[in-house]
Amino acid sequence: MQDPKARVGRTDWLEEIRWNADGLVPAIAQDATTGDILMMAWMNAESLRLTAREGQAVYWSRSRGKLWRKGETSGHQQVVSEIRLDCDEDVILLKVEQKGGIACHTGRRSCFYRKLENGEWTSVDPVLREPDEIYGNRQEGNSNE
Amino acid sequence: MQDPKARVGRTDWLEEIRWNADGLVPAIAQDATTGDILMMAWMNAESLRLTAREGQAVYWSRSRGKLWRKGETSGHQQVVSEIRLDCDEDVILLKVEQKGGIACHTGRRSCFYRKLENGEWTSVDPVLREPDEIYGNRQEGNSNE
Repeated sequence: MQDPKARVGRTDWLEEIRWNADGLVPAIAQDATTGDILMMAWMNAESLRLTAREGQAVYWSRSRGKLWRKGETSGHQQVVSEIRLDCDEDVILLKVEQKGGIACHTGRRSCFYRKLENGEWTSVDPVLREPDEIYGNRQEGNSNE
Repeated sequence: MQDPKARVGRTDWLEEIRWNADGLVPAIAQDATTGDILMMAWMNAESLRLTAREGQAVYWSRSRGKLWRKGETSGHQQVVSEIRLDCDEDVILLKVEQKGGIACHTGRRSCFYRKLENGEWTSVDPVLREPDEIYGNRQEGNSNE
């Protein structure tokens, strides 16, 4: 199958993305070394542009209605080594180095710490650092981001 | 020990999920062995219930407005070994065995075959099998699913 998108100029790459009605796409963050899926958050065009430019993950916080530089409060930045796009142009994949080894606001490595077992969601991954220790009273939040 | 049938019939775990306004959540499929991210599609409660019950990925096709049993046309089913939920209860992660080694409707292993390089989305992963060979004239589609 031909890929007509292969020759698109360098200023157009953001325009190839099929943003949803709110101007957002899901972005999956994957540990570049281990392959672990760390989290999924949302991006608008500006956050993706900044992510590419700065080499660090910048999301769009739907709950706070503003750009969310991952790690701005926690120090748990995500250094981006690769940005990928899916076949439908509506999902982004980031390969990252997770600073501090903690992506989740609960203090766990990954946000996907619950597993369906016998009809129940069971927490199977450890808290590496207490959220109070990470955030104090400050909010960074991917809690309901 | 609980009756396995009773466990399978339980659906209260579905109620813990924060479905969006359309009754959907994103579901990421990850190769259970290699850690590769294969695709992201959408699920409603029924598709997730069936995925858990049948042990094979069932998504919700937004474009076709119906359940989409992954591999129903292509034979490229996803056998599910693990179902995970994120901290916000609004994203599902499936760990799967990808039958035929091809998740993408373009005939590639993963839908995330384009990489941002010098301001261009560049296809970096090979087509393993031509889509015509996989689908003929039939549509299964995660093309704009």
